[in-house]
Amino acid sequence: MLSVNEAISTLLDGSQHLVGDETISLLDAAGRTLAVDIVAPIDVPPADNSAMDGYAIHASDWSGPDSAITLSQRITAGSVPGELVPGTAARIFTGAEVPRGADTVVMQENCEEADGAVKVLKLPEEGANIRRCGQDLATGQKVLSAGHRFRPQDLGLCASLGIADVCVYRRLKVAVMSTGDELREPGDDIQPGQIYNSNRYTMKSQLAAWGFEIVDMGVARDDPDVVREMMLRAAEQADVVLTSGGVSVGEEDHVKAVVESLGAIDLWRIAIKPGKPFAFGQVQGKPFIGLPGNPVSVFVTLLVIARPYLFACQGVDDAFIQPVRHAARFQKKSSHREDYLRVRATSDGVRLYDNQSSGVLFSTTWGDGMVRQKIGEEIQEGDLVDYFPWAVFN
Amino acid sequence: MLSVNEAISTLLDGSQHLVGDETISLLDAAGRTLAVDIVAPIDVPPADNSAMDGYAIHASDWSGPDSAITLSQRITAGSVPGELVPGTAARIFTGAEVPRGADTVVMQENCEEADGAVKVLKLPEEGANIRRCGQDLATGQKVLSAGHRFRPQDLGLCASLGIADVCVYRRLKVAVMSTGDELREPGDDIQPGQIYNSNRYTMKSQLAAWGFEIVDMGVARDDPDVVREMMLRAAEQADVVLTSGGVSVGEEDHVKAVVESLGAIDLWRIAIKPGKPFAFGQVQGKPFIGLPGNPVSVFVTLLVIARPYLFACQGVDDAFIQPVRHAARFQKKSSHREDYLRVRATSDGVRLYDNQSSGVLFSTTWGDGMVRQKIGEEIQEGDLVDYFPWAVFN
Repeated sequence: MLSVNEAISTLLDGSQHLVGDETISLLDAAGRTLAVDIVAPIDVPPADNSAMDGYAIHASDWSGPDSAITLSQRITAGSVPGELVPGTAARIFTGAEVPRGADTVVMQENCEEADGAVKVLKLPEEGANIRRCGQDLATGQKVLSAGHRFRPQDLGLCASLGIADVCVYRRLKVAVMSTGDELREPGDDIQPGQIYNSNRYTMKSQLAAWGFEIVDMGVARDDPDVVREMMLRAAEQADVVLTSGGVSVGEEDHVKAVVESLGAIDLWRIAIKPGKPFAFGQVQGKPFIGLPGNPVSVFVTLLVIARPYLFACQGVDDAFIQPVRHAARFQKKSSHREDYLRVRATSDGVRLYDNQSSGVLFSTTWGDGMVRQKIGEEIQEGDLVDYFPWAVFN
Repeated sequence: MLSVNEAISTLLDGSQHLVGDETISLLDAAGRTLAVDIVAPIDVPPADNSAMDGYAIHASDWSGPDSAITLSQRITAGSVPGELVPGTAARIFTGAEVPRGADTVVMQENCEEADGAVKVLKLPEEGANIRRCGQDLATGQKVLSAGHRFRPQDLGLCASLGIADVCVYRRLKVAVMSTGDELREPGDDIQPGQIYNSNRYTMKSQLAAWGFEIVDMGVARDDPDVVREMMLRAAEQADVVLTSGGVSVGEEDHVKAVVESLGAIDLWRIAIKPGKPFAFGQVQGKPFIGLPGNPVSVFVTLLVIARPYLFACQGVDDAFIQPVRHAARFQKKSSHREDYLRVRATSDGVRLYDNQSSGVLFSTTWGDGMVRQKIGEEIQEGDLVDYFPWAVFN
């Protein structure tokens, strides 16, 4: 059996960006992946500005709390200051540009204004209350790297630099298909022998949350001709083909033979629980991933194994997801496979859902994340374990 | 000063659902909030089915590894089995319905099939390899509660129950506005005294990630009539009005007077860093939130203070976000305010960005989350501290 890390490494070693780039408005860039580095084109702030409502002076003009300094201008945020007349002060507001000739801003609470002049009761140190040009970001500084996925604060950062358009990778197109005569869609009646297709919904929704474009192929009947025709259409329309279920050596599983005839397929046994059987190959030159069929296996292998690969195809420079450590509020014997246990965290640790069967999707909705139990690791009540909240996979 | 918890509690105490409900397709429900409980309308699985490719028998018909049992039917997934003829076996595949009269499935690896009969070499325990009707979910079981936000696996769960449409809350409409003559949009040239408006991008993108509908009001000039007119339009079109900057008692800040004239406003001083000044009130009966103006203060108060309130208005039954514990790879003296430090996590702990100024938005893009330093808490190298990855706020 392949270890989880071996499986991921093998996938990543064979991966490459599959998509070109396009330039879009910053307003549309949330969740998209940068195709180029972003280098600051300007200083932020672009000029010295006041951190306070107060008075701008040259500190050397101060001769004590009783001597008034004449006010020569009033500078609001957004206005253009004139040079400070020597020996005078300027009324100034938060965010307004500090005039040339001033070197200090005195907060208004330490001043008394009367008759067009201001008394500075307490002089702060020279340079006080001025946000210096470039103190946040300097022209030429690299602020975001190619391969980075835009989060809200990244959009804010680009906006602060005046960047209106960004060059991002085109969305990766992922074809999603299921196979099985037993599958029915929600809303349909089910007859004896049939079940509802949940994997389509889990997969589509998770892939969409990752920013991919979904090519929804629906369900293929258990018929080699139907599977073949659908597989060809999927490979034609998408960058990657993703299936759930039907990839085994069973006589009713046609996916393996079809993919083999159109490209290549390897059936892996990965030391992961849930989710041991996993297929990887290509259809007409497009990467093919065959997830297991059980609903929890689909979800776990999608997050743990498929995600890093799909992100690499998208051009995402994906940081390895760090688990956090949390106290186990359960005990569990060691396992021969890396076990992803569905848990719920509270302030004193993580609790296990009592039914960890790969068929029980409810364990993933009851839970708020999973604990990784490494091979051979025995978990005792109170042990610190590796915990991944679901949210960190997004 | 209000503590962070007092501020959140005060907001939540005065909150109420502000939106009605609507019924939408499950396919469109990602990120939406359930308006009703979801109760399982069927059992999952809906009938006993086989967990293996193998042979279904009645265990009492087995009389040893050498005696062949006649095959009477072949049951594929999705087909309707007949009742098992007593004394015979049925060929059966993974996911296929177990016929009445059979009580055990033997995996094919432990069988030998020849001439229309099967020898069971090793009998498993009675009931083996059968996934029982209702073992995952039982009819009538509550599976998701009103107020829950749909994640990918929740869509899968509803699909497995055959639920095609769901009743969710209408998206909360949040009006976003900024004020300030100094603000310019990315793509425009900036003149002396001007800066680019980053808060609009951070706020819009974060609110959209939370599933709200944005009513983008743009930027109001520092003119009371303009601010008043925009505030009225915002209150008319949205459920909640959100601003950044401009809410202080300064003579150039018009928001306070305008909101007061159209409703009510309280200026809070919250013991949080960054982000002390925070305004809450109402405009024509619609809740009004005034975030601070500095980019990091906007981001932090949006996540920590505004988020729980906005979620309550949306009808989200938001679980308190649990921090996880991580080792500090820095030291920091205690503070009089609850300090949200921008950090980056590695396997051995979290590192501090070296410039924690509220103007340095880069600290939030360099970082992958923040550490909460409680009032009076002194942090030493190696201490376990409260860490929130950015992702957990989504």
